[in-house]
Amino acid sequence: MIDKTAIIEDGVFIGENCSIGPFSIIRTGSHISPNSSIGSFCDVGVHGPNSQKAELKILENAIIRSHSVIYSGSEIGRNLKTGHHVTIRENSKIGNDVQIGTLSDIQGDCSIGSFTRLHSNVHIGKHSVVGEYVWIYPYVVLTNDPHPPSETVKGVTVEDFAVIATMSVILPGIRVNMGSLVGAHSLVTKDVPFETLVAGVPARAIKNVKEIQHEDLNEPAYPWPTHFSRGYADELLKEYDRRRREVL
Amino acid sequence: MIDKTAIIEDGVFIGENCSIGPFSIIRTGSHISPNSSIGSFCDVGVHGPNSQKAELKILENAIIRSHSVIYSGSEIGRNLKTGHHVTIRENSKIGNDVQIGTLSDIQGDCSIGSFTRLHSNVHIGKHSVVGEYVWIYPYVVLTNDPHPPSETVKGVTVEDFAVIATMSVILPGIRVNMGSLVGAHSLVTKDVPFETLVAGVPARAIKNVKEIQHEDLNEPAYPWPTHFSRGYADELLKEYDRRRREVL
Amino acid sequence: MIDKTAIIEDGVFIGENCSIGPFSIIRTGSHISPNSSIGSFCDVGVHGPNSQKAELKILENAIIRSHSVIYSGSEIGRNLKTGHHVTIRENSKIGNDVQIGTLSDIQGDCSIGSFTRLHSNVHIGKHSVVGEYVWIYPYVVLTNDPHPPSETVKGVTVEDFAVIATMSVILPGIRVNMGSLVGAHSLVTKDVPFETLVAGVPARAIKNVKEIQHEDLNEPAYPWPTHFSRGYADELLKEYDRRRREVL
Repeated sequence: MIDKTAIIEDGVFIGENCSIGPFSIIRTGSHISPNSSIGSFCDVGVHGPNSQKAELKILENAIIRSHSVIYSGSEIGRNLKTGHHVTIRENSKIGNDVQIGTLSDIQGDCSIGSFTRLHSNVHIGKHSVVGEYVWIYPYVVLTNDPHPPSETVKGVTVEDFAVIATMSVILPGIRVNMGSLVGAHSLVTKDVPFETLVAGVPARAIKNVKEIQHEDLNEPAYPWPTHFSRGYADELLKEYDRRRREVL
Repeated sequence: MIDKTAIIEDGVFIGENCSIGPFSIIRTGSHISPNSSIGSFCDVGVHGPNSQKAELKILENAIIRSHSVIYSGSEIGRNLKTGHHVTIRENSKIGNDVQIGTLSDIQGDCSIGSFTRLHSNVHIGKHSVVGEYVWIYPYVVLTNDPHPPSETVKGVTVEDFAVIATMSVILPGIRVNMGSLVGAHSLVTKDVPFETLVAGVPARAIKNVKEIQHEDLNEPAYPWPTHFSRGYADELLKEYDRRRREVL
Repeated sequence: MIDKTAIIEDGVFIGENCSIGPFSIIRTGSHISPNSSIGSFCDVGVHGPNSQKAELKILENAIIRSHSVIYSGSEIGRNLKTGHHVTIRENSKIGNDVQIGTLSDIQGDCSIGSFTRLHSNVHIGKHSVVGEYVWIYPYVVLTNDPHPPSETVKGVTVEDFAVIATMSVILPGIRVNMGSLVGAHSLVTKDVPFETLVAGVPARAIKNVKEIQHEDLNEPAYPWPTHFSRGYADELLKEYDRRRREVL
C-alpha cells in the first residue's frame, strides 16, 4: 500500500505489508522492515551533513505518523511508534518498542533504550544516553553544553526506569539514576540519586520514591512497575527487581 | 477552490465557498462547513484507534493553517482559527470562536469552551476541561497523570475568563477558578482561587487580580474584560459580571 | 533543481543554482536568491493578513529545511539556516548568517540581528528586538504582553552577544544587556545587566560572567568569544571588545 503520490527514491528497501502515506518521501538508503506504516508528509532517510552512513534502518512494525522527519545514519528497533511532526536526526540508536510523541525532537548522536516512552514535545540533546523503560514527559529538555556556546558537549544520562516529569530541564553531564523521579518544572543541576524524588529550581532531593503514596491504591506509587505494566511484558516487576539488585 | 493536488477521499462533505490548499488530505467522514479554509499540507479527519466515531465535524468559517492534523471523532464549532503545525486528536469538543496557535497539541478526550484562545505551543492533556473566554499562553502544559506513569487520569479544569501565562504547568486534577491569573513560569500544585493571581514554583497566591495595576491605563488590569474586548461581543464585561455573580 | 512536484506560483524569482524540494510551494512575490536550498513540504511567501507588503526577500545561500513556513513581508539576509517545522511570520527583519532551529516560531514584526543563533523550539514574540551574535537555547520564550490579554505590546530587547539558556522566559519590555547570560529555567522579570549571570524564578543577579570558570580550559568561560568562534569570522573577540567599549 504505497500511495501513488509518495516518492520512493532508488535504493530503498520496503518490506512486505508496509504502507506509505500520501506525499511522503523515502530517500535512498532507507530500509523499512515489514509491517511498518508511514503516514502522510513524512521525509524518511534524509541525508544530513553529519550522517555517519547513508543508510537508515527501521525494524518491523513501525508506526510513523504524519509530518515526521527521520535522517539517515540512525538505527531504530522494532515497534517504533511516533506521533506527528517528530524529528529524529542522524546517528541515533533507538531500541525496540520505543514511543516518541508528537513534536519531539531527537537531535542525533544519542541513544534511547528499548521500552522507553517519550511523550509530546521532548527534546533529546546530542550525546544523551537514555536507558530502558524510561518515561519522559512533555517539554522536558536534556541539554549538553555546560557553558553555552562552547565546544564542550556533555550529554545527559538517564538510567533504566527513571521518570522525568513535564517541563524539567536536565543540565549537561548529569546522571539521572535508576528508578528516580524528577518532579514537574524542575531544573536538575546535580545527579539524581537512585530511587529518589527530586524537585524544584534547582531540584533538591525530597524523599525516597517509595514514600510517594498512590492516590487510588493503598500502596506506594513507586517503583512504578509495582502497579503499572501497560504495554510491557508480564514480568516487568521482576525485571525491575533484577536490575535494581545489579545497581545495589 | 479545492487545489488540484489535494486529496479528497470518498464520503466527505465540503460546504460552499470552502478552500482546500495544495497537498492537503480530507479523510472519509469529514464534514467541512461553508466558508472554511484549509491550508497546505493538512491531514484532516485522520482515523485514530481511539476515535469514538468516524466523523469529524467542523462548523462554518474555519481557518486551519498549514501542516495541521485533525482527527476524526472531534466536534469543532464556528470560526475556528488555527496556526501552523497544530494537532487536534480524537474526541475533542471545541466550541465556537476558538483560536489554537501554531504548534499547539490538543491530545483529545477533552473540551475547550467557546471564545477561548490558546497561543502557540500549548499542550492540552487528555481529560482537560477548559472553559469559555480562557486565555492560555505559549508553552503551557495541562497535565493529567498524578504519579507518572499510571492508569490514573485526572484532567485539569480551567474555568471561564481564567488566564494562564507562558511556560506554566498545571498539575493533574487542579481547578483554575474563574477570573484567576497564573503568572509566567509557574508550577500550579493547588487549586487557584477565584480572581486570584498565583505565581512561583510551586505557585502561591500573591494577591487579588484587581490589585494588579494596568501599566498604561489608570485602572486595574483585571478582570481583563474591563479594558480588553478585541474580537469579542460588545457586552463582554456584562457577561463577565453575570458569570461572576453565578460563582459568588 | 526544482522538484517536479513543487508548486511555483507566478511572480516568483528563483536565482541560479537553487533547489526546491518535493511538494514545496513558493508563493507569488517570493524572491529566492542564488545558491539557496528549500527542503520538502515548505510553504514560502505565505500571504498573511498583516503582511506589510506582498514580497518576501531571502538573500543568497539559504538552507530552509522541510515543513517550514515563511510569510511574505519579511526580509532575510544571506546564509540563513533553518531546521524543520520552522515558522517565520510576516514583517520579520532577519540579518545575515542567522540560524533558526527546528520548531522555532518567529511571530513576526520583530528583528533578529546577524550571526544570531536560535536553537530548537525558540519562541520570539512580536516586537522583539534581538541583536547580533546572540545565542538563544531551546524552549526560550520572549514575551510581549505585560498583563495578558491586553492591547499593550512591549517587546523584549536582547543585546549583542547575550546568551539565554534553555527554558527561560523573558517578561515583556525587558532588556537583556550585552554579554550577559540567563541561566536555564529562569524567569527574567528585570533588566539583565551587562556581562552578568542571572538565574532563578524570578531571576537574580548571581555574578559577573567572567567569574564563571570553563570546565575544560584553565580560564573564564565568558565572554564566550574568548574561546568559541565556530562559524564566525577570525576577529570575533576583537569585535566583542570593540562593541564592549561602545557600551561602557
